[in-house]
Amino acid sequence: MKFELNAFDPESKARAGSLETSRGIIETPIFMPVGTQATVKAVNQTDLEKRVKAQIILANTYHVFLRPGLEVIQAAGGVHKFMNWDKPMLTDSGGYQVFSLSEIRKIHEEGVYFRSHLDGAKIFFTPEIATDIQRTIGADIFMAFDECPPFPCDEKYAKTSMELTHRWLTRCINRFNETEPLYGFEQKLFPIVQGSVYPELRKISANFVAEQNMQGNAIGGLSVGEPAEHMYEMTELVCDILPKEKPRYLMGVGTPENILTCISLGVDMFDCVMPTRNARHGYLFTSKGVINIKNEKWKTDFSPIDELFMPEYSKAYLRHLIRCNEILGFNIASLQNLSFYMWLVKEARLHILAGDFTAWKKQILPIITQKL
Amino acid sequence: MKFELNAFDPESKARAGSLETSRGIIETPIFMPVGTQATVKAVNQTDLEKRVKAQIILANTYHVFLRPGLEVIQAAGGVHKFMNWDKPMLTDSGGYQVFSLSEIRKIHEEGVYFRSHLDGAKIFFTPEIATDIQRTIGADIFMAFDECPPFPCDEKYAKTSMELTHRWLTRCINRFNETEPLYGFEQKLFPIVQGSVYPELRKISANFVAEQNMQGNAIGGLSVGEPAEHMYEMTELVCDILPKEKPRYLMGVGTPENILTCISLGVDMFDCVMPTRNARHGYLFTSKGVINIKNEKWKTDFSPIDELFMPEYSKAYLRHLIRCNEILGFNIASLQNLSFYMWLVKEARLHILAGDFTAWKKQILPIITQKL
Repeated sequence: MKFELNAFDPESKARAGSLETSRGIIETPIFMPVGTQATVKAVNQTDLEKRVKAQIILANTYHVFLRPGLEVIQAAGGVHKFMNWDKPMLTDSGGYQVFSLSEIRKIHEEGVYFRSHLDGAKIFFTPEIATDIQRTIGADIFMAFDECPPFPCDEKYAKTSMELTHRWLTRCINRFNETEPLYGFEQKLFPIVQGSVYPELRKISANFVAEQNMQGNAIGGLSVGEPAEHMYEMTELVCDILPKEKPRYLMGVGTPENILTCISLGVDMFDCVMPTRNARHGYLFTSKGVINIKNEKWKTDFSPIDELFMPEYSKAYLRHLIRCNEILGFNIASLQNLSFYMWLVKEARLHILAGDFTAWKKQILPIITQKL
Repeated sequence: MKFELNAFDPESKARAGSLETSRGIIETPIFMPVGTQATVKAVNQTDLEKRVKAQIILANTYHVFLRPGLEVIQAAGGVHKFMNWDKPMLTDSGGYQVFSLSEIRKIHEEGVYFRSHLDGAKIFFTPEIATDIQRTIGADIFMAFDECPPFPCDEKYAKTSMELTHRWLTRCINRFNETEPLYGFEQKLFPIVQGSVYPELRKISANFVAEQNMQGNAIGGLSVGEPAEHMYEMTELVCDILPKEKPRYLMGVGTPENILTCISLGVDMFDCVMPTRNARHGYLFTSKGVINIKNEKWKTDFSPIDELFMPEYSKAYLRHLIRCNEILGFNIASLQNLSFYMWLVKEARLHILAGDFTAWKKQILPIITQKL
């Protein structure tokens, strides 16, 4: 894996890069659609590649571990073959889901005992197990097993949790170094900075993570309910510490505004369920502003959903489909929102390359965030 | 609208034809995917045309009348523009849904009072209203308003009901002749033969319908729970009476076996929710046999779902998606089943043209109906 920086914005910390993986080049800044259970909800793989123009997608270790399970993934020859997706993929470590989905869990030094949210089955994840699972899933980039504290979270708990995450990181890296990819493609492990909204903790964590000298670094524990200002403050602080020459991945972020702001702070990679989840509820991101397609005002609006991404279907038609819970409505809305997100980061990249990212950002933000 | 017969099977009553509409030619025998609420469930219009190769689709008058409603359809310039489908469409008259979905209804000579299955709103359909609604929807072919009696149904009720359907037919034809298409494309009205499973009633009804000299004729009231032998007996009897030079449409039929058998009895057009509905429950039709994809046996079967129609996704992957209720699973399974149905009628046509339909049917039926 090789990361090249192609351009820097003169008026912010934004940068454009190229991340070379054994399954192809990812041009940054990039957004990664979330394919929770080895499918980006409501979108097929052909449309994901050709229409949405996704360069890398994410799968959730916790969900894939539960269903279809590792036996199936391994027999398939990895998640890429299983779902017929040849481009890069990233898996999270399962940590976030263990802490957000499982109601019963017990954290020990060794790892976490928790129960499946599906059938209550007792499961034990450790840094070593999470690493082995991600070897079996076979994503190109995979994440260290961390504890993701909630917001709000007192400083004492945040510190204890961060220190555990650091000890777990060392164990993840050891296990990573002792093991090999299973399917003939290189795999890279990204460590995760934690520390909640406490600047001192974030500094300690960013320095610890930077010292590991891995090929990319992630910022976790944000976009968990904190005010945007906290997210931006922590992100900037951490980006300034993490090595410039490595890609920086801000996990689970966010709105279009969050993404553009964090690009300007030096983030290269993003993922979020927002485009697909909002789509299924009829909330659309378009090149002209945001839309709640269920509103009466779209009832007889036969203009295209978005001339740029969805010229063939009208707002009135999509409104009808979403109101009727028709699967095609979920599909069209998801394609629209993902296409918008991919367009947004691509435009950001082009404007960084052109040297006018900051001016463009100032111009585009009021347009794409206005309520139509 | 012009119907040309291109070939006849020497060993059965099967025929291959071409039905010319102002939106393109339909090659018969044909299967029409059902687009209940102006969408063929789980499939987009591009895939429907390019991948499934649908030549004509069906929409349900009752459903479209309720949602999005006629105001929206008329403002859009008809259902084709509303849903972005440029090829031929057919609408049923609403009769079937009035009798199958609405729990509260009252049949009068004038028409039917019933309540919406959605919100209980009181609605009145008459032959004239159903005709006007279908003018507004704007399908290329539309159906006379009929009463569709259930199975079983005693002969006395079947006779009374059939006679009402005949009087309604006269009123539909009168209204049809008094009105014009709204959107610049020709529309044709097909009358419907009723008579339940009573040969004498079916004869009377087929003769009455034939005398109307419309441009196509339909057989209704079958595939409502009667044994297949009854369906075949009634279909053959009616086909023998209906004019040879007009297309014959058997409504709501059916399984692949039903379709091939009824093609051999002289039917040209079919529709059924089976391919799409079964798909959403994981029941697949393939060129090698039928599959319940939820079965354990497909867990690690990474062979394509069907080399002919779905080479890119494996059985194990589709099993995973369907078990997880993932939208992509419904999409893939629906594409598979519809592609299979369209392939089946296309193959039937090619073998009628080649003169070996009956031999091919005998050979293919045990293959496609076997349980895998």
